[in-house]
Amino acid sequence: MTLTDESTLLPNGLTVEAARAEAARTYELDRAHVFHSWSAQAEISPMTITASQGSYVWDGEGNRLLDFSCQLVNTNIGHQHPKVVAAIADQAAKLCTVAPQYANDARSEAARLIAERTPGELDKIFFTNGGADAIEHAVRMARLHTGRYKVLTRYRSYHGGTETAINMTGDPRRWPNDHGNAGIVHFFGPFLYRSRFHATTEAEESQRALEHLEETIRMEGPSTIAAIVLESIPGTAGIMIPPPGYIAGVREICDRYGIMYIADEVMAGFGRSGKWFSVNHFDVVPDLLTFAKGVNSGYVPLGGVAISPAIAETFAHRAYPGGLTYSGHPLATAAAVATINAMEEEGMVDNAARIGAEVIAPGLAELAAKHRSIGEVRGAGVFWAVELVADQQTREPLAAYGGSSPAMNAVIAACKANGLLPFANFNRIHVVPPCNVTADEVREGLAILDKAFDVADEHAR
Amino acid sequence: MTLTDESTLLPNGLTVEAARAEAARTYELDRAHVFHSWSAQAEISPMTITASQGSYVWDGEGNRLLDFSCQLVNTNIGHQHPKVVAAIADQAAKLCTVAPQYANDARSEAARLIAERTPGELDKIFFTNGGADAIEHAVRMARLHTGRYKVLTRYRSYHGGTETAINMTGDPRRWPNDHGNAGIVHFFGPFLYRSRFHATTEAEESQRALEHLEETIRMEGPSTIAAIVLESIPGTAGIMIPPPGYIAGVREICDRYGIMYIADEVMAGFGRSGKWFSVNHFDVVPDLLTFAKGVNSGYVPLGGVAISPAIAETFAHRAYPGGLTYSGHPLATAAAVATINAMEEEGMVDNAARIGAEVIAPGLAELAAKHRSIGEVRGAGVFWAVELVADQQTREPLAAYGGSSPAMNAVIAACKANGLLPFANFNRIHVVPPCNVTADEVREGLAILDKAFDVADEHAR
Ligand SMILES: Cc1ncc(COP(=O)(O)O)c(C=O)c1O
Ligand SMILES: Cc1ncc(COP(=O)(O)O)c(C=O)c1O
Repeated sequence: MTLTDESTLLPNGLTVEAARAEAARTYELDRAHVFHSWSAQAEISPMTITASQGSYVWDGEGNRLLDFSCQLVNTNIGHQHPKVVAAIADQAAKLCTVAPQYANDARSEAARLIAERTPGELDKIFFTNGGADAIEHAVRMARLHTGRYKVLTRYRSYHGGTETAINMTGDPRRWPNDHGNAGIVHFFGPFLYRSRFHATTEAEESQRALEHLEETIRMEGPSTIAAIVLESIPGTAGIMIPPPGYIAGVREICDRYGIMYIADEVMAGFGRSGKWFSVNHFDVVPDLLTFAKGVNSGYVPLGGVAISPAIAETFAHRAYPGGLTYSGHPLATAAAVATINAMEEEGMVDNAARIGAEVIAPGLAELAAKHRSIGEVRGAGVFWAVELVADQQTREPLAAYGGSSPAMNAVIAACKANGLLPFANFNRIHVVPPCNVTADEVREGLAILDKAFDVADEHAR
Repeated sequence: MTLTDESTLLPNGLTVEAARAEAARTYELDRAHVFHSWSAQAEISPMTITASQGSYVWDGEGNRLLDFSCQLVNTNIGHQHPKVVAAIADQAAKLCTVAPQYANDARSEAARLIAERTPGELDKIFFTNGGADAIEHAVRMARLHTGRYKVLTRYRSYHGGTETAINMTGDPRRWPNDHGNAGIVHFFGPFLYRSRFHATTEAEESQRALEHLEETIRMEGPSTIAAIVLESIPGTAGIMIPPPGYIAGVREICDRYGIMYIADEVMAGFGRSGKWFSVNHFDVVPDLLTFAKGVNSGYVPLGGVAISPAIAETFAHRAYPGGLTYSGHPLATAAAVATINAMEEEGMVDNAARIGAEVIAPGLAELAAKHRSIGEVRGAGVFWAVELVADQQTREPLAAYGGSSPAMNAVIAACKANGLLPFANFNRIHVVPPCNVTADEVREGLAILDKAFDVADEHAR
């Protein structure tokens, strides 16, 4: 526990005592009035966050925690980056909001900076408020462009919380929302550690997963399918980096059948895996690319879709039938401009790649060699998963698919007790610090994880 | 044309010359990279907005325009309110973002302030990024609470751009998105000026509209219907104030059949009609209430759902299966806190009511008496519609339902040429200034509309 000295000031200027008093009131009002996502309201007891700086946050007790979660994997530039904080204040003083039908300098400049970085000629940007609506609009564009309705997505994926996006999602959060009428078909993606294709090598997994996808398309009817949507690297579902050849194979299949390939880069984009976009690892250009989170580190809600010339052309003389009040919001896009410029100026994408290769990869390999509870570690850049198992031979997960377990709860508690805020999902702990994390911060985090995995080991055979 | 003197500084501190240079670049980048909502991309030529203050905005030429649109009817406190601008800068410096699973002071306080103002015991707040996702989540809550799927909404309505929300929408923007599988059934709402019920009085319209709704429910099967969703006063569709008894009748029908009543207050809420929420005009408490726009005047993207105790209880020990990365975003909720406090301190809701009754109502009545192109004026607070017709007898609209016309385009152009930014839809011009608009500003706007309606008269018999 990294208890802050009582006399220390938090980064927001509060004394620990004042922060505690504020947190008590915050908690009380939260329980009285805030309805939390994905939760049974009476069974949660939310931790208060009162301050943050760089790679750290402070809880309501004044404890400092190393944020190895980036909240929901969105603060790619860390917390409270001074350039972005200043840009938000400047834009607020200049012009907080204008409607989407007008032109505005912050929106124009953000669109330019994003278009410059997206692969290929994805040069037209439709702005949304977050990831789910980016997905909704990308799917709509693909449906209207192709004149087809069905959408293929993979099991073990997440695409958002609105109706179409949650139905596209391949995790149990879809189930209570699935009435079988959203026009979505799920298939199995490559995941060698838990292969559905009886594969033993990455090459075999890739080839068989492509065969499976193509056979699914043939059975569903190619002429009924508007789009295949894939997280370039599935995030919450487990950071399974597609094996060599897979993404190129998907692109080729899409071309063959006139299907749009939509790359969901909401979590995988903006430096997370050590490149501006994760699809860049595979030298492939999608037809549509969705983004959010890292685009401005979530300092102001923002998402969007980057659009190919062919799809944009479909809506040149025919109205695109979609929109939202805050499309291209000046404050949100000004934060994106400052974020992208700061990432560029400070070499954050390269830093993410280097930290991943030189510090996280060897560090996690060392932990994997040491802990019997670690089944696999995998990732790139600052985007890593540790798969915890009860048994390395059977690969039985430390929590069932879709669930939690006393073992996983104990691991998470050990992380927090030792000063680390983890990102956990089912039987996995993800290592997802900011792109500008330092080697020392990563080593600090790995040392805490080492202790937490000791706890996991007690639950492993 | 209110051409700003070349030597004047714009509110953002730019000279007119500098603003023009900035606007030229903004426009060029916009055309190269920004994909606009609801538009044929090659057929638009977006006006640039470079600055704003109070009830005014400045275009790329340095012209000042009276904003009688509040952009998309969202800047209920006007542009660049100093208290809210300061609050955004303060919160940005303190803490831009935390994930939804934590507790945070800005979020807690915003939830408290909203819950205090919503009718009845709608005391739990689920935050979203805007109106469409508020609607999506409200519908999900109703579906899971009732165990039923179908949702009833009215023709002549707007509920948002995501898949469920656009399918709920009762205007032509739904059509390209409608595959008949969203579980939505549309019915006719009360609208005496264009009555579908052969009614000649408000009482008759109300009673017959209720009969029609109940008969629709009986034919659809009450046990299949999760919710009825109504804008408390339909906004974009024409500001048709429900006749006395209608909303109370809907509430009674919902109670009788175990159907949830969802009030969409995205546009009608937060002072727009002269009360905190438009449903308050009818002394009725819905089961769920959606909001966005006015909650923080759109200075930062924010929306949400206010939830009844019974529905919240459904998710006390069962996880609510929905969420989004930016639910309860600190910057957005801090802007809501400052907005609500400013509205309260400065008596803006009362001002909206008074301006509506004392300045807009008589002003528009005078224009209606004078212009043969005005078929009807209707509204409350700062929420008014002027229905333009080619013929007062036949009520033939000046543009067809779902379309525009040379006549309407000429009216809109006359507004802009004379220094007013209008909100137009089909054959209507809406008068929707901020809640803190002054009587003089309204008179200035009405004088400009007077000239624009002269243009409309040329197209009327
Ligand atoms: C890959 C992916 N797509 C879409 C989303 C949805 O984004 P949002 O939560 O902003 O709606 C997420 C969020 O975690 C995501 O990880
Ligand atoms: C009544 C109503 N509901 C929902 C919406 C959708 O809100 P948003 O554009 O923020 O998604 C709007 C937007 O105009 C609206 O007027």
